[in-house]
Amino acid sequence: MDNMKKSICFPEGFLASGISCGIKKGKKKDLALVFSTYPCISSAVFTTNKVKSYSVIWSIKNIKNPIQAILANSGNANAACGKKGWDITTKIMEHLSLILNISSKNILFASTGLIGNPLPEKTIINSLEKIVKNLSYKNGIEAAESIITTDKQIKTEEITTSIAGIKKGGFVKLGAMAKGAGMINPNMATMLAFITTDAVISKELLQIALQKAVNDSFNMITIDNDQSTNDTVFCLANGQAGNKNIKENSEEFYIFSKALRDVCISLAKKIAKDGEGAKKFIEVSVFDAWSKKDAKRIAKKVAGSSLVKTAIAGAWSNWGRIMSSIGSARAKIEPANIKLEIGPYIVYNKEPIKFNDSELKQYLSEKEISIKIYISKGKENATAWGCDLTEEYIKINKKE
Amino acid sequence: MDNMKKSICFPEGFLASGISCGIKKGKKKDLALVFSTYPCISSAVFTTNKVKSYSVIWSIKNIKNPIQAILANSGNANAACGKKGWDITTKIMEHLSLILNISSKNILFASTGLIGNPLPEKTIINSLEKIVKNLSYKNGIEAAESIITTDKQIKTEEITTSIAGIKKGGFVKLGAMAKGAGMINPNMATMLAFITTDAVISKELLQIALQKAVNDSFNMITIDNDQSTNDTVFCLANGQAGNKNIKENSEEFYIFSKALRDVCISLAKKIAKDGEGAKKFIEVSVFDAWSKKDAKRIAKKVAGSSLVKTAIAGAWSNWGRIMSSIGSARAKIEPANIKLEIGPYIVYNKEPIKFNDSELKQYLSEKEISIKIYISKGKENATAWGCDLTEEYIKINKKE
Repeated sequence: MDNMKKSICFPEGFLASGISCGIKKGKKKDLALVFSTYPCISSAVFTTNKVKSYSVIWSIKNIKNPIQAILANSGNANAACGKKGWDITTKIMEHLSLILNISSKNILFASTGLIGNPLPEKTIINSLEKIVKNLSYKNGIEAAESIITTDKQIKTEEITTSIAGIKKGGFVKLGAMAKGAGMINPNMATMLAFITTDAVISKELLQIALQKAVNDSFNMITIDNDQSTNDTVFCLANGQAGNKNIKENSEEFYIFSKALRDVCISLAKKIAKDGEGAKKFIEVSVFDAWSKKDAKRIAKKVAGSSLVKTAIAGAWSNWGRIMSSIGSARAKIEPANIKLEIGPYIVYNKEPIKFNDSELKQYLSEKEISIKIYISKGKENATAWGCDLTEEYIKINKKE
Repeated sequence: MDNMKKSICFPEGFLASGISCGIKKGKKKDLALVFSTYPCISSAVFTTNKVKSYSVIWSIKNIKNPIQAILANSGNANAACGKKGWDITTKIMEHLSLILNISSKNILFASTGLIGNPLPEKTIINSLEKIVKNLSYKNGIEAAESIITTDKQIKTEEITTSIAGIKKGGFVKLGAMAKGAGMINPNMATMLAFITTDAVISKELLQIALQKAVNDSFNMITIDNDQSTNDTVFCLANGQAGNKNIKENSEEFYIFSKALRDVCISLAKKIAKDGEGAKKFIEVSVFDAWSKKDAKRIAKKVAGSSLVKTAIAGAWSNWGRIMSSIGSARAKIEPANIKLEIGPYIVYNKEPIKFNDSELKQYLSEKEISIKIYISKGKENATAWGCDLTEEYIKINKKE
């Protein structure tokens, strides 16, 4: 996997580490730390779930501050465990702050795993010395391994932009890592993504760029229509590239925003491909819709339809389910003007189009399925990503 | 099954028949006719899907008229098949009108099955003589059999109200039949329900009573979050009981509305119990929410969560998934004040409550699972119904 070569420590001045501290059974890595040698401008997008993890609540409180570290654990969501949850969160953060010798206000926290059990306070606190000691720019992969749960593989990304830095031949860079797997949904559910950059940029512009990138990426993937208590995307910018401060409406802002969007889309697609039990990746593109909102609603509705997902799992050319999903998307459409393509096959164009069923079945047996929907008359497009729905998903989530 | 004794022909003056006309393979029944010897006041609730079956479009056009017959087929949705779909629909209706010797304006139509193929025009038209000839008050069961698809059993209901009719000892009655199975969702998806009554009631009051009954019943069941092109609930009232005209705000209206609601809830629960692949029935009750809308949203979100449904399939006491669903329901809540019960076990009350895991697992292995959610401080309640999500659902919908 090309993933293995990429790391959140790619931009200047970022270190990471990942260890097994004992939250999960069997010595699996479960605690990650990302550290910047300089305080960072930071921005975030959090879950909209009203039952929030204490880690999310902690980070919402601190995101306004300069940030220097992110602690993240897997194996426990740190959610719905009563007042105790907040106390334990605070204690862990205070301990980490002493060891790192920075204020706890400059640390973010993210958790993923089972909901309803308090974090094992001592287990984590006893491991903080070790995780700090292990910090290195070489340990991005260990950190990426420590945040995954039922993911089959780690998810990382790196991009070098064309924005010149202070060093000769140096450019602004971005690095990232994410975890996905189950419970992924429009509006980011149980997924974590951390993005680092050495860009010099203001907090306001970073937040604008991040929100837009998240809207077009993590908010356009859907695995099972469930929403988590813990979703978090962080972006830290430590300014170590030494580029000229990126200004609004500048070419540099456009370049930076595109790079951030590309990183997020790349991670989002990796998450969709690695959906629990997924055997096939599904890309749904909507063209010529009446509004961006309509285009996105339709794309997500189709990518998230259990009936479309199971039909694709069975390589069944039941395109009527796609039409039905389009109609149920609460978007403006004219059913009589829709055109529908599955891979290279037009199956509907104002009326059903004859196609070779065994050829389409062959196409639907591939690993990556493309669905194109032309609403007609409008001008807005959107793409959503998902995966098929298989017996394996049920098995994983029944915990058998 | 007690179902077997109940029939849509229970009220005075209704006849029905059901035959195999050849839409489905293997001589399965696939065409139903319900007929009233007198024209009926009628009301309906239709799918909100924008890709509508031509049968739905036909019925929307005619529902304003006095109605005397409902034709319904299974095995073909009569949807998304181009202009031809409407032409065929019209021809079938015109033929039926000649045979019944009533105007086609007085006939409703409903279809369920695969989307995208035109109805087999000749096959249906050639069977119309037979289905009319078979009309009898004894044939309600045959009609109920003709509208089911992947349902494992027919769904019918009968109720006798306490509203006195013209005959000595006679009372206003209701009869009903429905089909459910897959693609069931809040806002009624691929389900058909036909209700007959011999009540004397105005069109306006019948529509009010029906909409309310549907909101509390069919719109509160969820199987897979998909929405069909074909959902339809019809209620026909032929006035043959000869009761005093039911007036607004009268005790009789209250009694009639309650009976209609009871019929709809009974059918809705039968549909949820018979969800594709379902092994367990789930009832989610929400108490003390801030508004009716909030209560309904929470109940439906939990009953529809893939993760809750699979956990229950696996008899897994992962109540954190319920908390997460509650939080994602877009309803006002105070996470710190929630109380959560699974069957007789309190699992959360402002904080996690210790329970005997093997006892709870035992409970979750039963056929009917009750989840009670106390939001606290509010005054509104709601109940939703669903089923577990099993490998069998995937198999059915992969068409393997």
